[in-house]
Amino acid sequence: MSSGRPRVGTFKKVTSLANPLVKDIRALHQKKRRDDTRLFIAEGQKLVRDAAEFGWPIHTLAYAATLAGDPAIGALAAETKAGGGTVLEVSAPVLEKITRRDNPQSVVGVFRQRFAPETDVGRDGIWVALDRVRDPGNLGTIVRTADAAGLAGVALVGACCDPFALEAVRATMGSVFHVPLAQLSEDTLVAAARRHGARLVGTHLIADAIDYRKADYRPPLILLMGNEQQGLTDTLSAASDQLVRIPMRGKADSLNLAVSTGLMIYEALREC
Amino acid sequence: MSSGRPRVGTFKKVTSLANPLVKDIRALHQKKRRDDTRLFIAEGQKLVRDAAEFGWPIHTLAYAATLAGDPAIGALAAETKAGGGTVLEVSAPVLEKITRRDNPQSVVGVFRQRFAPETDVGRDGIWVALDRVRDPGNLGTIVRTADAAGLAGVALVGACCDPFALEAVRATMGSVFHVPLAQLSEDTLVAAARRHGARLVGTHLIADAIDYRKADYRPPLILLMGNEQQGLTDTLSAASDQLVRIPMRGKADSLNLAVSTGLMIYEALREC
Repeated sequence: MSSGRPRVGTFKKVTSLANPLVKDIRALHQKKRRDDTRLFIAEGQKLVRDAAEFGWPIHTLAYAATLAGDPAIGALAAETKAGGGTVLEVSAPVLEKITRRDNPQSVVGVFRQRFAPETDVGRDGIWVALDRVRDPGNLGTIVRTADAAGLAGVALVGACCDPFALEAVRATMGSVFHVPLAQLSEDTLVAAARRHGARLVGTHLIADAIDYRKADYRPPLILLMGNEQQGLTDTLSAASDQLVRIPMRGKADSLNLAVSTGLMIYEALREC
Repeated sequence: MSSGRPRVGTFKKVTSLANPLVKDIRALHQKKRRDDTRLFIAEGQKLVRDAAEFGWPIHTLAYAATLAGDPAIGALAAETKAGGGTVLEVSAPVLEKITRRDNPQSVVGVFRQRFAPETDVGRDGIWVALDRVRDPGNLGTIVRTADAAGLAGVALVGACCDPFALEAVRATMGSVFHVPLAQLSEDTLVAAARRHGARLVGTHLIADAIDYRKADYRPPLILLMGNEQQGLTDTLSAASDQLVRIPMRGKADSLNLAVSTGLMIYEALREC
């Protein structure tokens, strides 16, 4: 799959698992191929339609042959072709191959990745910045929470997992199309915060961090969440205007990252 | 694997994937086998040791042969044998088979499942009740959050996924050994709440539900969370003393269940 637009109006019926177009989509399960093409896969008819309506052109649309003749699919296919995209009517085994699922969604879309400029981070409202997040399910769930809460965006700091991996996209439940995502280094994040006058609130399990209910969350604000195993880097801890912790009252010594991020986001919203 | 205790002091070195003891452990990936034996698998040396210290006898201990001679493993093995359990020193391929993982933990424990009596639900403090929770990752994450927050327990209402499935146990990060779990029907839950005078606060996305920050969370309290796709049943909605909703400010129309449950739990704790 070239990273340029395919020819206008391409339409093919595909039943062969060896079809090159199918192989191109399947290859998007690999990080390297996603990086090279800047494309990603999203599953589900509602999700693909919502994405298109929200201004994401469909690069490739694949749908189950059983949906041929469905007016909603016809409209999606027409829109895809009009925009220069490829439409594939595929067999059930091909859909299973593409999605690597036993009972796949009957519609799959391929879209071009988007990242917001680094300079947007911390400019307005509330951003969440994730320091080396590792789990794609956590990342996707956090993007979904950021969307539900109406945040300005999610920043990925340092070596994070890929927000466009299929598992991450699935966990966003469509929010990947709504929430600006930015990628930047620790130093760039801190510089952006300083330049915009954004408050950096870091979450930390150290004893002298203040209770998360007592912090100052006035925007512009960046909520800084550390890696699942290691927490925040020393650099990011030191750069934080406030370090806060969520009280632990039982025997567990930490929360799942998506849960703690949800708590921080909704705590920050109390002030808005 | 019989559900009774094996002979005292059993110790075996195992390298064959076909060994019956290995097959017995592997069979615990199946729900039916877990139901029949009332056993489950937990992974990780720290987790197995913490479980034993917290009063969970080790039914079977399996560890990588590379750990032979390690004093901490020796202590765990001695404790297992003293309690009538089985100790298996196994090869790396056997561990991979047992855990179905490429890079498995080097210690695996098999434990007997425990459920709290139905009559405990709602008696004191704060319980979370999950109505037909489907995703084992969500369930495990919620058990972890309930532990961190020091809740009284987690009740599984109706047809829930299995809290002792390996994926659920993994997501608890050890909290499965700390948090009382109960299983009961809708009617039994409602009856237990009434009998104990426990407040039932249900989370619902309907428009006339009150803001979750304005509800009355005084214990004894049961926080009632609906199924990931369908929300609460009509019966449980009708039985709730208060229906609350978490505000959505963006384009996502719902939160991940583990996130929304985390928000409800920590909101309820504000009053304590």
